[in-house]
Parts: sequence; structure tokens; C-alpha cells
Amino acid sequence: MDKFTHFNEEGRAKMVEVGNKLNTNREAVARGSIYMMPETLTKIIDQNISKGDVLSVSQVAGIMAAKKTSDLIPMCHNITLTGADIHFNIDKENSKIDIKATVRTTGKTGVEIEALSAVSVAALTIYDMCKAVDRGMKITEVRLVKKTGGKSGDYINEES
Amino acid sequence: MDKFTHFNEEGRAKMVEVGNKLNTNREAVARGSIYMMPETLTKIIDQNISKGDVLSVSQVAGIMAAKKTSDLIPMCHNITLTGADIHFNIDKENSKIDIKATVRTTGKTGVEIEALSAVSVAALTIYDMCKAVDRGMKITEVRLVKKTGGKSGDYINEES
Amino acid sequence: MDKFTHFNEEGRAKMVEVGNKLNTNREAVARGSIYMMPETLTKIIDQNISKGDVLSVSQVAGIMAAKKTSDLIPMCHNITLTGADIHFNIDKENSKIDIKATVRTTGKTGVEIEALSAVSVAALTIYDMCKAVDRGMKITEVRLVKKTGGKSGDYINEES
Amino acid sequence: MDKFTHFNEEGRAKMVEVGNKLNTNREAVARGSIYMMPETLTKIIDQNISKGDVLSVSQVAGIMAAKKTSDLIPMCHNITLTGADIHFNIDKENSKIDIKATVRTTGKTGVEIEALSAVSVAALTIYDMCKAVDRGMKITEVRLVKKTGGKSGDYINEES
Amino acid sequence: MDKFTHFNEEGRAKMVEVGNKLNTNREAVARGSIYMMPETLTKIIDQNISKGDVLSVSQVAGIMAAKKTSDLIPMCHNITLTGADIHFNIDKENSKIDIKATVRTTGKTGVEIEALSAVSVAALTIYDMCKAVDRGMKITEVRLVKKTGGKSGDYINEES
Amino acid sequence: MDKFTHFNEEGRAKMVEVGNKLNTNREAVARGSIYMMPETLTKIIDQNISKGDVLSVSQVAGIMAAKKTSDLIPMCHNITLTGADIHFNIDKENSKIDIKATVRTTGKTGVEIEALSAVSVAALTIYDMCKAVDRGMKITEVRLVKKTGGKSGDYINEES
Repeated sequence: MDKFTHFNEEGRAKMVEVGNKLNTNREAVARGSIYMMPETLTKIIDQNISKGDVLSVSQVAGIMAAKKTSDLIPMCHNITLTGADIHFNIDKENSKIDIKATVRTTGKTGVEIEALSAVSVAALTIYDMCKAVDRGMKITEVRLVKKTGGKSGDYINEES
Repeated sequence: MDKFTHFNEEGRAKMVEVGNKLNTNREAVARGSIYMMPETLTKIIDQNISKGDVLSVSQVAGIMAAKKTSDLIPMCHNITLTGADIHFNIDKENSKIDIKATVRTTGKTGVEIEALSAVSVAALTIYDMCKAVDRGMKITEVRLVKKTGGKSGDYINEES
Repeated sequence: MDKFTHFNEEGRAKMVEVGNKLNTNREAVARGSIYMMPETLTKIIDQNISKGDVLSVSQVAGIMAAKKTSDLIPMCHNITLTGADIHFNIDKENSKIDIKATVRTTGKTGVEIEALSAVSVAALTIYDMCKAVDRGMKITEVRLVKKTGGKSGDYINEES
Repeated sequence: MDKFTHFNEEGRAKMVEVGNKLNTNREAVARGSIYMMPETLTKIIDQNISKGDVLSVSQVAGIMAAKKTSDLIPMCHNITLTGADIHFNIDKENSKIDIKATVRTTGKTGVEIEALSAVSVAALTIYDMCKAVDRGMKITEVRLVKKTGGKSGDYINEES
Repeated sequence: MDKFTHFNEEGRAKMVEVGNKLNTNREAVARGSIYMMPETLTKIIDQNISKGDVLSVSQVAGIMAAKKTSDLIPMCHNITLTGADIHFNIDKENSKIDIKATVRTTGKTGVEIEALSAVSVAALTIYDMCKAVDRGMKITEVRLVKKTGGKSGDYINEES
Repeated sequence: MDKFTHFNEEGRAKMVEVGNKLNTNREAVARGSIYMMPETLTKIIDQNISKGDVLSVSQVAGIMAAKKTSDLIPMCHNITLTGADIHFNIDKENSKIDIKATVRTTGKTGVEIEALSAVSVAALTIYDMCKAVDRGMKITEVRLVKKTGGKSGDYINEES
């Protein structure tokens, strides 16, 4: 197993040097879910029909979070993203909403953490919008499912 | 079940008016976990002995995220926090780290979402620092466990 | 006419001292319009029926901008807002969308500039979302229409 | 007329993928005006002679806003700007100040919205600095007047 | 000597709880200097006569930094400031500019770090604006000179 | 001596155009020191042994500040950094901590101001964490010691 790369010779955290990495097409896809009471999910679905629904606010928040990632995560490089998208899957059977974020760049680092941040903030936004009716919602299974581009090669974990 | 409060008469999202709420002592506690390979956890524990460990970076990121919450979550009020703290529990048996964030204010809104954001960003930071050795880490069970203060009363869900 | 208050004895800009002002209920309402081609307006109305419409993104951006105002406007105090809301009026006859923002605080300064920032950023977001089909859109008549609370008294200019 | 490009197949907003666009020299010029009482304009002109005048604060705010645009406008890409400048024209006859912002990049997207944001925030800053003496100021005619570079070709609308 | 207060029982940094502190008038004054070549100082003085001089940009940057302090300094509370001002003293004899920042709040924590941040960022801005002609400038003697209000009592160190 | 480059023909500040500059490897190294009472330094050294020490919080703050520089310094370009690191030297003899920041980019502008910002914010963070026991700490000798890459050539001032 490789060593952690984010530490300098004094054992302190650093933002690792990526100047020699290639500018190349990179994509990351992350997923996560938020569980809630069936009544809460029903309300979200009902709102969904109207204009300013919970999920469109969550969508905007998630995409903005992808852009803010390097301001949130201390050792994450500030890079320019070329695209970001979020999809929701309403899973009535399990009373949850699945969130999937796809982020792309043509820069020198992968965008795994940007995709994971987008999923997390989208989920937190759903929590915030619905907490008055359901404080017991749970954000879970936030994980990377795909990563392409870059020297470390592709990573596919769709079944996780 | 109450109606969603974050929508105006046109059905669009708004930041709800809290001008009539009392300034009072409010606290929220949130928890979450990040699962990883046993080798990754061992490396974190080993680093832990040295100065600039993964968890102290995560700690700083989580506390800063609590302060940034209203910039991340669209309909969340910008309030002044009176304190924020994060604790970690290393669970070798289940190969995970448990994160607990406590946030306090004396303002007009609860700080549930601030505590949840702190947990999420602390977990994302652990992911970021360790991703070079373990891309399969999973952030899970992010939930509110306690909320005190404010008109809606206390909420305790420690066993969740 | 009073003197400008934002300058110190050297003639340089300062953030004026408001420590002696009262914490009181304050509200500001601002309005503005964005003109566009009739075809663009029709497209917005059509999208409006679906979930993630132009106006709901604009709504979120405007509310977030109200919270960010003190970070944008150099001499503006950073205060906590108690509420923010945005309404749209689609004016087919004049091929424009009217935007109205209402912002409230219980703090020591008025929120005129927060309401005006919300209108401006909501309008800029409409421009951004539609610019691929209409680069000639024009943001216009951004002005304060109402201000209540605070020592300087109420200001009503609804017909402006 | 082309379709809106900022929506995914679910009808939700996304940050469109620009990874295949070329890095090329791009420029955008935006204009706008702020109307005020003649006395207010006279005061600004008088202050202008001293060091920390209204317009130099507005200038700084406008340039900083150009850099912050992707944090304000939800679906706007975060790109690196290569330059930004703002010019003022004092129009005594019409009792207004005209603002012109020029923004440049060598990146993958145009900078129209950055130029428009710079004009808007520069105007809002003038409002903020002068509002104690003139609450009736009006920001108007904020529009793109020129755009060069990029596949969609040049756009010139100087007379608008 | 008292113990450090910013650490929790695990020895990790926290944002200390100030909920029991009083809302009271608090002020902090900080000073610092930036040394440069005599020619650089002459150029700043000459520019000073014109409108958009180095020092007015520095002034704006310093005041905005005071407001941003809690976003820069990890364990610093986010509080609302009631005022901020910066003064410059041009010291030709020693070829330096002295910067003095005064910050006030009516909140629960002192604003020492806000005043020190304002001085530091004002000095950094002078460096940035002049670095093309003088890379050897030095920022020095950044220190607190006065603090009033709050339980810990007043602190005066004007001769430091 | 060259003219200041940050001013337009009206004498107002601008963000200078760098579109014609080359993307090339650039590095800047800055240094600074914070003086304190011997007892304060001893406490920092003692804390150092435990996990969440003062210096690791300072380290994180300095690196995050490097990334935030263009948001703090008005005319500074927003560029992507390829790496950032901070080192501390504990100087018991002089009762001070020396801070050294190294920042790199492959972009179109140097990163001198990013390195200086990292040093300043790292020092301010030490002040913040220790101010309860020592208000007389002084930040001093913040200066550029090395700059390589770019058309203006290398700059070495290690003895300053």
C-alpha cells in the first residue's frame, strides 16, 4: 500500500505538487442516498410537480458545492471544472432519494472529491428543506462509483 | 404532518422569516461514519502519532464548514455560532471512524444543518487525504442525534 | 443634503460605525426587470412547467446573493438576515420578467443593498441561463421601492 | 432558435460540459448606468478629487466581483480570468454615471456574465456608498455590448 | 499563565464556546508597517494625488478582510462587525507606510484578530500593487496596540 | 524604475491583462516570523506533542489562504495552484516561530502574493490560537525570499 501523499517531511499536511501531471480529460461520478419517512418523500414528490421544488434547490446547491470544493477541503487543489450535473432517483420502496453527481475537468487532478462534495451538499440541502417535518433523515452510502482519466487509471465501483 | 415552510405562495423556495423567533441557547449534535479498508485505518492511526495527522486536518475543515454552512445550503440563515467542536472515535473492529460534531448558537435558528455540514465536510476531508490509498471509502449514517433549544422543543435520537 | 458617511477624516472609505444603532425589525424591498426577445420569454415560460426551470435557479441565486452581500459590497456591514424572498412577474406584453426581492433583519443596519443585490444576481442568473439563445437581454430599473425600520424612517417609492 | 443548454434530460439545471471547447482569447464588454439626483452626482464628483472616492471603491468592488462570478451565478463555470478593467463616464446632463467593464480570459468559456456582474456590483457599490443621501438611485441598461472569441462568434451591440 | 483554550479534551482544536459571554461594545486597534525602497514610496505618494491610488485599494482590501476573518482563521468566531476603519501614515524618513486598523463589534468576542487581519491584508495589497517595481518590500511589526471591552479587560500597548 | 502596472488610463486600479503571458512553471517562497513570550513558545512546543497542535491548525490555515488569495487581494489574478507547503522553525533563542511558505503554479502569473498570504494567515492563526495567553505577539519580517519562472526572471533574497 502506498504512503499518504499529503504530508511533508515534518509530518504536516501539504497540498501536493501536481505541476508535472498532465492536463487531460477527467471525470468522477459519486453517489449517495438520503433516507426519510415515507410521508416526507411523498411531500417532496408532490412539491416536485410545482415550480420551486426541493430537488431543484438541492440540484443548484450540489453544483455550486462542486465549484466550492477547494474552499471546503483543505488540501484539495483549486481547479477549473468543465461540467457538473446531478441526477436524482426517487426510491419509494426504500423511502429514500438517491443522488448521483458527475463532475468533469480537463485539468491536472481528478475530481473525485468534487463529485462527493456535490452529493453531500445536495443531500444536506434536502435535509435542510425538509427538517421541519422530519428530523430523522439520514445521509448514507456517499461513495465514489467511477473515476476516469489521469495516470492512476480508471476506477469503477458501480455496484458499491 | 406540517407543511414544508421553505416555499412562498408561488411555490418557490424562500429563506423563511425568523425575525419573531427568540434569541436563545441552541445546540445541535450530529454524527456520521466513514468506512475504509483496515490498512487505511491503520495508516491514519499511525499518522495520528505524528503532528499533522489526517484527523487534525479533518477537524479544522469540519469546524470551518460549520461557519460556512449558510454559504453552502441555499435556504439556511446566516447566523453567528458561539462554539463548534468535533470528536472522532476510531472503531477498528468495524474499520471505520465515527465523527461527532457539536455546534452552538444563541441566535434565532437551530444549528442542525451546521452540525451535519461539519460532519460531512470532516468526512470528505478524510476521504480526500486518504484517497490515494483507498478510493472505496464510504461516508454513511450522517444524521442528527440531538437538538436542544428553540420553540420546536428538544430532539434526542442517540441510538440512531 | 447630508454628507456622505462612508469616509474617514483622511477622505478614505470606511465601514461606518453602527454600534449605537438599535437592533430593530427592518425590511427592504427592491425591484428590477430583465428585457428579452419574446421567443426567449416563451422558452422560459415553457421550461417553467418542468422541474428545474430558469426561474427557480434564479430564485436560489438571488437568495444566496442576499446572504453574500457584505462580501460583495466593500463598505456593507455583515449582518444576519432573518428572511429573504423573491417573486417573479412574467410580463408578456413588454417581453420582460419583473423581479421583486424582500429581505428582513432584526439587526443594526438596513437591508436595502441586500435586496438590491438579490434582484441583480437573480437577473444576472436569468441572463446566464438564457444567453445561448439571447445575448441582447437587458437588466434595468433596479431600484429600492420600500424600506421600513431604523432611525432614518420609512421610504416608500412603489411607483418608481 | 436554439434550445436552452443548461438543462439535463430530467429538465434540471446543470453546468454544461465545455471540456471540448478550445482555450482561446475571449473578451466581453458590458455596460450599465446608475441614475441619481444631480446633488448626489455633484457630491461624487467633489469626492472624486480626494483620495478615497466613491468610484475607486466601486472600481475595486467591480473587479473583485468579476472574479467571484462563478460563486454567484449557479451554472457559471469557474474559470481563470486574465484581466479585468472598469471605466466610468460621468454624464452630468442626464445625472447618471455610466459604467463599462471589460473582462478577458484564455479559457474555455466566454466571460459575458463576468463583465455583467462587474458592472452590476460596481453600480450596487455606488448605491451603497451614496444611499444615505439618495435612496432613489436606479441601476439601469445593464447589457452586453461586445463579445469576441469562441465558436459562437463575435457579438457587437455598441448602440444598445 | 493560563492554558490554551482552543483545544478539546482529545487535544484537538475547537472553536471555544462563547455563548455565556456578554454582548458588549468591543474595540481593537492593530498596527503594522511595510518597508520599501524610497523610489517605491515616492511613486505611491505621486499616485496618491490621482484617483485610484494604491492606498485606496489597500483600504478597501483591509476592510473587506476584517469581514472575512472568520473564513480565514479556523477557530475564529463569525461575528457581525459594527465598524472598521484603516489609516495610513507615510513615513518618508524610514521609507515605510504605517497601517492602523480599528475594528468594533457589539458581540460576544473581541475583534483583535479582525484588526490584525485588516492590517495584514492591507499591507499585502500594497505589496501586490507595487511588486512589479519592488519585490523586496517587507511587512513588519504587525501587532495589537489596543483592545477594550469584554471580561478580560483592556489592553493597551501603544508603544509596542 | 518601471511604472506601476495596475492602473488604467484614468488612473484607476485594474487587474492587468496577462493573456499573452506563458503558462510555465512558477514558484514563490515567502518567509515571516511571529515573536512571543518564551512561556507561550514553550506551551506551543508542549502542545506540539499532542495531536491537534497550534502549528497544524496554522498549517491548514496558511494553505487554505494561498488558495483564497485572489479573493483577498483585489487586483490579484485567480489562478490554479499546483502545490502549496508550509514549514515552521521553532527558534527558542529568539522566542519566535519562523514560517516559510512555498507555492507553485503552471499558470500565467507569479505566485509571490499567494506565498506571502500563506505566511501572513499562518502567523495570524498562531496569534489567534495563543492570544488568550499572550496578546503581545508580533508578526514581522514577512517578505519574499525566492521567485522563479516567468519573463521577469528569478529573484533570490534568501538572506533578507
